[in-house]
Amino acid sequence: MKLRDLGEDKLLDQLLLHLPLGKTVTSRAAGAGDDCAVVENRAGRNLLVLKTDCIVEGVHFFPGTNAPDVGWKAMMRPLSDFAATSAVPQFAVVTLIAGEETDLAWVKNLYRGLRGAGERFRVSIVGGETSSTRGPIVISVSVVGFVEKNRCVSRRGGKAGDDLFVTGRLGCATKRRHLQFVPRIAESRWLTKNFSIHAMMDLSDGLAVDLPRLARASKIGFKIELANLPLSRGAKIDDAISEGEDYELLFAISPDQSKKLQKQWCRKFPKLPLTRIGSLVQQPAIRNPQLPGGYVHFQQPG
Amino acid sequence: MKLRDLGEDKLLDQLLLHLPLGKTVTSRAAGAGDDCAVVENRAGRNLLVLKTDCIVEGVHFFPGTNAPDVGWKAMMRPLSDFAATSAVPQFAVVTLIAGEETDLAWVKNLYRGLRGAGERFRVSIVGGETSSTRGPIVISVSVVGFVEKNRCVSRRGGKAGDDLFVTGRLGCATKRRHLQFVPRIAESRWLTKNFSIHAMMDLSDGLAVDLPRLARASKIGFKIELANLPLSRGAKIDDAISEGEDYELLFAISPDQSKKLQKQWCRKFPKLPLTRIGSLVQQPAIRNPQLPGGYVHFQQPG
Repeated sequence: MKLRDLGEDKLLDQLLLHLPLGKTVTSRAAGAGDDCAVVENRAGRNLLVLKTDCIVEGVHFFPGTNAPDVGWKAMMRPLSDFAATSAVPQFAVVTLIAGEETDLAWVKNLYRGLRGAGERFRVSIVGGETSSTRGPIVISVSVVGFVEKNRCVSRRGGKAGDDLFVTGRLGCATKRRHLQFVPRIAESRWLTKNFSIHAMMDLSDGLAVDLPRLARASKIGFKIELANLPLSRGAKIDDAISEGEDYELLFAISPDQSKKLQKQWCRKFPKLPLTRIGSLVQQPAIRNPQLPGGYVHFQQPG
Repeated sequence: MKLRDLGEDKLLDQLLLHLPLGKTVTSRAAGAGDDCAVVENRAGRNLLVLKTDCIVEGVHFFPGTNAPDVGWKAMMRPLSDFAATSAVPQFAVVTLIAGEETDLAWVKNLYRGLRGAGERFRVSIVGGETSSTRGPIVISVSVVGFVEKNRCVSRRGGKAGDDLFVTGRLGCATKRRHLQFVPRIAESRWLTKNFSIHAMMDLSDGLAVDLPRLARASKIGFKIELANLPLSRGAKIDDAISEGEDYELLFAISPDQSKKLQKQWCRKFPKLPLTRIGSLVQQPAIRNPQLPGGYVHFQQPG
């Protein structure tokens, strides 16, 4: 069945009515056909956190890509930004823009992926919108949640002398892992509960693009020890710094805390490597000249 | 200058860094390059309200459309849903999906429209995302705000015997007004402050599509008095019920309150008509058979 044969109301009914809603969603929000999603606000005195992201056919996934994987990726990308902020995601709204020839089964599988990804982090899909298009399929996901004031992390707090760490392994994610990654929310929440993280971000465009962003936001320079980069199986250093789509955490922490961090990390997350890859340095001018470009929209890799 | 020549980071810098932020946005949110937008949560014990919507080139606007008008419409569409819910919008995040040949001046003018529309209702654009595409331009806007528990309205509370009212005039909006409309947030907030509104929605797809949605959500039937429809200049009854893009309010209220409502409305909003167009009736089966279809995505008008 094509979307054309169904119509928008029935499509939204099918996609949204049977979504499982988390405990923080009131019955008011259950009317998926309503104009707005309305939910209990449990954020209390915490800060409200918002993130929107999208994936575009032909850019972030290809026409033949497995639909649940596409949905998974569409949800996990903004959730990875919650990890970067050490925030707790709660609610998502999804916009699907697709041609009327799109197959309904594909769309249902897409939502299966979106839902599965949301459930992994107790995120409720509370609303959505659809539009027709004559172009590629676009899935836009916006997520709202909270972060405690004293645990909110940005790219901006990096200090000279800080050690730079990355989680997991880098490179070769664009083949398959970019469709099945799990954002480092648990790890990020543990980090800010137990340590003072000065600056943090998730690696989506490649270390070569993302690390300069963190340094620029912190008004500081950096040094990488390329030989120390944790490489994925089969990855070369170039892949690890410029391919992108790793969705690992990059963070800066005082060197005083590094030893304790590494020790406790191994006990808490024994399967996930944590690697010191360099440090932040005083002079904003000092950057490794050998860093080639990662992926930047609207621009060819340098 | 084309987007291709600028790159994503500089584009986001230009679009987001100089946005005026409302008082409820902390300085933490000012780093537009951050992974998430982080704002003070002033919703307190109120309900949190979320809405996302998008506009697509070739569907909701045409390539030659004035860019500030496109931005205005992209922001005002989700805000119209806040009016329907009687909610107060506070924060918006914007995703722009555009080809790399898109002209930077056009994009800046688009943001001028988005910003102007946000400022009209004290909505701060706190974050955003961009992606390249090989297809039509898409602008997706997600808005977060709040509504007091006792003032939250949906499509679902309509009761048999309720009078149905619409604000403004209907029809002929697709020529020009759909790009410059002002959502009825002030009117909606006044309504729920002073009256008990049983059910409400905004008219975006045309009365012929939208009224049955309200009736279906309220599990009830309706009668329209077509001769009473408030027509825009030059509009015929068919235009008024099936063209869509009116962004006026449709609401149901107890007939006991109708007289008082009409009297007070005239004093409060002397320039905006308020018209009783029919009523809700017990039998879900009773619907005006002469209602042709409005605009439904993925489906030809009936």
